[in-house]
Amino acid sequence: MKFVTAELDGEVFVGLVSGDARRILPLGKAAEKKDGKNDVPPTMQECIALGDSFIQKVSSLQAWAENGEADELFISLDSVKLLAPIPKPSKNIFCIGKNYAEHAIEMGSKDDIPEHILVFTKAPTTVIGHKETVLNHQHITKQLDYEGELAIIIGKKGRGISKEKALEYVFGYTILNDITARDLQFRHKQFFIGKSLDTTCPMGPWIVHSSNIENPNKLDIQTMVNGETRQKSNTENFIFPIEEIISVLSQGMTLEPGDIITTGTPAGVGKGFKPPRFLQPGDAIEITVEKLGTLYNKIEL
Amino acid sequence: MKFVTAELDGEVFVGLVSGDARRILPLGKAAEKKDGKNDVPPTMQECIALGDSFIQKVSSLQAWAENGEADELFISLDSVKLLAPIPKPSKNIFCIGKNYAEHAIEMGSKDDIPEHILVFTKAPTTVIGHKETVLNHQHITKQLDYEGELAIIIGKKGRGISKEKALEYVFGYTILNDITARDLQFRHKQFFIGKSLDTTCPMGPWIVHSSNIENPNKLDIQTMVNGETRQKSNTENFIFPIEEIISVLSQGMTLEPGDIITTGTPAGVGKGFKPPRFLQPGDAIEITVEKLGTLYNKIEL
Repeated sequence: MKFVTAELDGEVFVGLVSGDARRILPLGKAAEKKDGKNDVPPTMQECIALGDSFIQKVSSLQAWAENGEADELFISLDSVKLLAPIPKPSKNIFCIGKNYAEHAIEMGSKDDIPEHILVFTKAPTTVIGHKETVLNHQHITKQLDYEGELAIIIGKKGRGISKEKALEYVFGYTILNDITARDLQFRHKQFFIGKSLDTTCPMGPWIVHSSNIENPNKLDIQTMVNGETRQKSNTENFIFPIEEIISVLSQGMTLEPGDIITTGTPAGVGKGFKPPRFLQPGDAIEITVEKLGTLYNKIEL
Repeated sequence: MKFVTAELDGEVFVGLVSGDARRILPLGKAAEKKDGKNDVPPTMQECIALGDSFIQKVSSLQAWAENGEADELFISLDSVKLLAPIPKPSKNIFCIGKNYAEHAIEMGSKDDIPEHILVFTKAPTTVIGHKETVLNHQHITKQLDYEGELAIIIGKKGRGISKEKALEYVFGYTILNDITARDLQFRHKQFFIGKSLDTTCPMGPWIVHSSNIENPNKLDIQTMVNGETRQKSNTENFIFPIEEIISVLSQGMTLEPGDIITTGTPAGVGKGFKPPRFLQPGDAIEITVEKLGTLYNKIEL
């Protein structure tokens, strides 16, 4: 199951992507036609918060629609505007820093490989969707950099979650570009400012439900800039696997449905090249994660 | 004008505190009685987002109520439960680190006095109100520490705000205790984890409207633990005054109504003593800021 937040004729809705990834079933309209009432909430966060009952509902709508009962309800993916799956998160995005050893080294040296998870955040105002434009922010940064990442969407409230139970708290996965103004990141010491410029958190195109991802700690990940491969790794190279991230993060802090945790970026960021290769106006960035798809965004000209 | 978010008989509402700080006027009920309809939103964030029209509305309700038209509507402050003025912020709290030179020195040395503002965040799940209990989190930290601070509530959306116009974007001020697990703060390098344990952001008791504070960069601030003064300073000792904080933070990031920015803590935190004096179960912390009042919280026994 792949879920999108989409906009058509000014209306925002949650949709299910068809198996061939060419069409969307608007879940509210499907429920209305099948069951006589639209009991699917309008936002992804509310859908996620429903827990198992949402997935059961979607399963039944999916089976019904695939029987040809609702062909007229399907919308071509090309005809909608995809928003970020969660366009307005209800808190900052949790970001794990330096979670691939080779990336920690390219940003400094072996001494930068962390012993404990390193967490910072991005403001909700950074979030944009697939194919939306990233502002170039040229008046405040000369060092805009990409970071292709796998992101986790939390499905269930919890605190003090054990590693063993951690994956039960995951609703699904998406692709995230943790775009960073390197000059601001280093000038202000703590990462927040350099990580929170408007539009610097492209996310999407959709959320793939956790039931479709057998092992999130073993997925190929690749970032291309203008068609050239810059990052190429696999999440098996995580220093801290997803179970550990969720467990450590939740020890004293309650995680909530709809929380977004992004898991860190592999080696190959612009800053890691000699000389550095930062993003320029007009650059196109494509991040591909195995089983999830490709997130595409361009930098404002 | 002082605004509270309060709870009575399970109902949460925004109230105006009377001049003697002994009674609250529930604004929705007052509007209903005076104008025949309750057009005051139920949450502080929605009220703030109304902008000037909210303040005009409150002014007219206040004048009307003080004429004795609504005596039966006033509720004794003692009879309600005060929540944090913004109990569920819609993003993390922006926190300025090391904004008083003496505090930067007590945490390290003169080399720690920042040249540029240092920003980290606290998760919305940390927020509690005046007199609410702070969890002791003894299973994960042995170094819980207080940080008395003046916090700003943003009133108006803006990006690229100039220092000259910055104070126009402030709705009001409150008191905030940026409680920190020092061991986690240092173990995880970036501050987020040590700053985001549940209940470690007491805030309140109310928001004082900006029209009542002539110069926020000149207010006495004091923290007491079990009646003993630990921090005593004045916001004139800020390294970065409020105008600069708002301007730098908003250069590439949109600030929104209801955003909370806390301005950093003076010298005298537990970590600064030799030996350190961390918070213990049962400790009572009182933070007093001139013209704002006193925020009181106890650590869970």
